[in-house]
Amino acid sequence: MDNINIFAPASVANVSCGFDVLGFCLDTIGDIMRVSKTKTKGISIGTLKGQKIPIDPLKNVAYVAANALLKDFPTNGGFQIDIEKKIKPGSGIGSSAASAAGAVFAINELLGKPYSRSQLVKFAMVGESLASGDAHADNLAPVLLGGFTLVRSNKTLDIIKLPSPNDLIATIIHPKIELKTIHSRAILKSEIPLTKAVEQWGNLGAFVSALYTNDYGLLSRSMKDKVIEPARAILIPKFKEIKESAIEAGALGSGISGSGPSVYALSKGEKTAKKVGQFMKTHYDEIGLDYEVHYSTINNEGIKIL
Amino acid sequence: MDNINIFAPASVANVSCGFDVLGFCLDTIGDIMRVSKTKTKGISIGTLKGQKIPIDPLKNVAYVAANALLKDFPTNGGFQIDIEKKIKPGSGIGSSAASAAGAVFAINELLGKPYSRSQLVKFAMVGESLASGDAHADNLAPVLLGGFTLVRSNKTLDIIKLPSPNDLIATIIHPKIELKTIHSRAILKSEIPLTKAVEQWGNLGAFVSALYTNDYGLLSRSMKDKVIEPARAILIPKFKEIKESAIEAGALGSGISGSGPSVYALSKGEKTAKKVGQFMKTHYDEIGLDYEVHYSTINNEGIKIL
Repeated sequence: MDNINIFAPASVANVSCGFDVLGFCLDTIGDIMRVSKTKTKGISIGTLKGQKIPIDPLKNVAYVAANALLKDFPTNGGFQIDIEKKIKPGSGIGSSAASAAGAVFAINELLGKPYSRSQLVKFAMVGESLASGDAHADNLAPVLLGGFTLVRSNKTLDIIKLPSPNDLIATIIHPKIELKTIHSRAILKSEIPLTKAVEQWGNLGAFVSALYTNDYGLLSRSMKDKVIEPARAILIPKFKEIKESAIEAGALGSGISGSGPSVYALSKGEKTAKKVGQFMKTHYDEIGLDYEVHYSTINNEGIKIL
Repeated sequence: MDNINIFAPASVANVSCGFDVLGFCLDTIGDIMRVSKTKTKGISIGTLKGQKIPIDPLKNVAYVAANALLKDFPTNGGFQIDIEKKIKPGSGIGSSAASAAGAVFAINELLGKPYSRSQLVKFAMVGESLASGDAHADNLAPVLLGGFTLVRSNKTLDIIKLPSPNDLIATIIHPKIELKTIHSRAILKSEIPLTKAVEQWGNLGAFVSALYTNDYGLLSRSMKDKVIEPARAILIPKFKEIKESAIEAGALGSGISGSGPSVYALSKGEKTAKKVGQFMKTHYDEIGLDYEVHYSTINNEGIKIL
């Protein structure tokens, strides 16, 4: 095999109760990447379509991630990466994670799979840390492993794939403003109240339990974030109204997707998810802010070979 | 039925990664309580054997919890509570929780079970708050429901019973010093670093997952506490050495039981659990500090009728 085409999906990190540890993979939005073997050693970036992303290799997350893999697994030839970027950088649905994970996934396939999907996370992290300033695997893990994932430790990359109830549908609204992870991270306080932290880990534990037991009521009650969301909400136009209308439309829960500005909701069934999207968008229609709405089942596979 | 004898078990709260939310129920140590119907209205405390606990009704957690239940479910007669207290108050294995939960459980039985075990938690909480200064259900929940329990919210008492792997054995060492919950709570800081909080909820989520999947490796890796343990460890003689020797003997993990001074360990299988106890006690033998060691399977039933 000399080249491969893949779908590198978008993802939702944090999921309200799991800041920096929880995430899930989307199915209807993602980048198309083509990686081809080259005779020249090393990584080269070919065509970049769709979105404005850095051509400078050292600022390109796909390049940096791919390079990290090749440092660990030296080969004689090289690889060219062509990217059709469909996920907007700074939208909060894992744009850099898709590029980083996609690059290492595709190269691993072309090398005959020396690494497992889990093992690829550490290489993708090198690219991801370019974009976020600080390396977290909460987007990379669901992109590589699929479904819902929990990163027990971002240091040792101890990653657990959690079960995904079949009829969960995500609604994502992306207001067309750009919010860099590095900026939405900067507004967080370095200390948080112990009482809020206890509520947060109670909710995360309950969320994990609900995924194993298909308990939608518990899932809904545990999708809370009193630590990060209150600080970041002010960066997202109409966040409060959008979240409230998602719940009013029947969503199990709603919150900031990753570091925003996208807002996600999870619903049981497609009908509710669509209604949630209809309710959400009225707020941006009112103020004339451009936006996109995505609907997606949970992508239990992660990156797909096309 | 005019009277009932019950076994009100001890329990381990926090379990390293789950401060104020996680707990499990023990099987080999607990109080024996006898509750009898009386013609006089209200609650009376009969004999109190075993340990020094308050006879003054307003300071007696069993009395206060029982009273809270009777306020919600008025009856013409009353109840006498006799307690053979085997759990030492201030030992860190849920002495007050056993008394409070035992009282409301027994009265509920004598009333023909108007409440479920889950519903009894709120009455027992009234007694528990007497002892701890602040009400938490992390000991009460496992005593009433059995097994491992997660308290998603101490405010709304949203409690989840988690699965218990069969061959988990607890080792508990209780150095004979008394440590009041109210004091070991007072030394905690009201703010904690966000980075430590993220590690803690990553570990708790992983611990919950490990219980569903019987993943002992993951269970072991997630039994960490970098938030509460470092502050409280100084209150427990030789804590660091005891914990280290438990791990050396093969325990999956070890930490402070509740607010201490008891130290718990969880091991796979009885042989390891016994070895852990042997290793742990050497440290108190060395310094001549009196102690008790308990071994127990996870009591998946909770309070038992005798």
